[in-house]
Amino acid sequence: MNTALNIVKIGGKLINDPSLLESFLLEFQSLHNPKILVHGGGRKATELSALLGVETKIVEGRRITDKETLDIAIMVYGGLINKNIVTALHNHEENAIGLCGADANIILAKKRTAGNVDYGFVGDIIQVNSDRLENLFVQKLVPVIAPLTHDGSGQLLNTNADTIASRIALAFSEKYEVTLRYCFEYDGVLYDLSTPELTISSMSKTEFDQMRETGSINSGMIPKLTNGFEAVLGGVREVSICGITNLISQKGATSLTL
Amino acid sequence: MNTALNIVKIGGKLINDPSLLESFLLEFQSLHNPKILVHGGGRKATELSALLGVETKIVEGRRITDKETLDIAIMVYGGLINKNIVTALHNHEENAIGLCGADANIILAKKRTAGNVDYGFVGDIIQVNSDRLENLFVQKLVPVIAPLTHDGSGQLLNTNADTIASRIALAFSEKYEVTLRYCFEYDGVLYDLSTPELTISSMSKTEFDQMRETGSINSGMIPKLTNGFEAVLGGVREVSICGITNLISQKGATSLTL
Repeated sequence: MNTALNIVKIGGKLINDPSLLESFLLEFQSLHNPKILVHGGGRKATELSALLGVETKIVEGRRITDKETLDIAIMVYGGLINKNIVTALHNHEENAIGLCGADANIILAKKRTAGNVDYGFVGDIIQVNSDRLENLFVQKLVPVIAPLTHDGSGQLLNTNADTIASRIALAFSEKYEVTLRYCFEYDGVLYDLSTPELTISSMSKTEFDQMRETGSINSGMIPKLTNGFEAVLGGVREVSICGITNLISQKGATSLTL
Repeated sequence: MNTALNIVKIGGKLINDPSLLESFLLEFQSLHNPKILVHGGGRKATELSALLGVETKIVEGRRITDKETLDIAIMVYGGLINKNIVTALHNHEENAIGLCGADANIILAKKRTAGNVDYGFVGDIIQVNSDRLENLFVQKLVPVIAPLTHDGSGQLLNTNADTIASRIALAFSEKYEVTLRYCFEYDGVLYDLSTPELTISSMSKTEFDQMRETGSINSGMIPKLTNGFEAVLGGVREVSICGITNLISQKGATSLTL
């Protein structure tokens, strides 16, 4: 049997609230090594943009990452959030190392273009350099990954953290028994926001497609679920949507299945 | 004979100007591996502080790093500057990895206090984890280090880049033939700012102390020289102050001697 590898992605709301983040890190500490933490953005980038008067540009309903927005993402995701999580993990006896996709070339990407729309500095992942990441975690280091990639020719690119987590999980799925957890503010996917204690225990790709069609999935859940199902379809052993308190037990978590 | 190790520190003016930085990176590419690049701050942190209305606090003539100033340092040094240098180095065929002192616990520090003055989040280095850095560069990775350290208990700290470069050089001086270069906008230490083509070819610690006493050293040079001489006194084989065009040849560079 292959070695187990834990990959956890945390997103906005957990990052925004220092006490929630601290609770998460305590649970994360109990997860077995090797493990990788991927983090998203959080509110801080939006706040900084507002303070600096950088406007969000939307073209054909899609957000455009211009030079100023990219610089803010590099500062907040690659700097502030990444380094604060790394530093906090050392306080939890975890030898964390913060990286973005450019560091040691761990995630190579390509600037996205789609028809006539230039999305700006947004990257679609070409390759995850799993050997480099493996070299780190076999040394008991815990990689903490910011949602930035690069094109190998000197350009940093903004990349969705849910996708990064899924693609890293896929890159290790042949050699490791990968468990991928999307950790957020609820214990799992909810039937209804008014009953947050009721979570869906398991969801197949077919069920997800049906729920999407009928509009019964909250739009904020779609990137996590889409990327989660890509991991399941590509052979990642276990993929779930969970919260902080059930990160380890997985009680009430939503397990994604074929 | 031990293996050679090149350590280069670059500072503000080279970082502020993208074309100067690009020229530097081209020269840096020609330096033999293993090598480590340490970078300072640059004007961007000051600019961002001004845009965000964060005032510089001075107590008894010393700059205080409060929480807001530290956050800006983390964003600019640990994020923007560090990740942009790393990404640019990949374009120069260097497999760079950007780190601050908290990453993999490479630089442990202690919050500075001096008498009644609390300097805020400023760190004095306790230990450089040279084994971790060595693990990276033996894999042909080029560590790029931002001027931030941590205290091991969850706090990031602002730390002078000249000191970081010197302390890393010292940490490797027994095992490696270390060459430490402080690279800046002139070819070496000048006799006089009005004749920038005339550089001092060599300077001893005694000469430096005399020049400091007579006030014939530009105050901006003092941290580089103080830290440079600490490296020389601690056994670092070669320490110099140089520019971009003489980074390799060392023609006109100022060599620091016992």
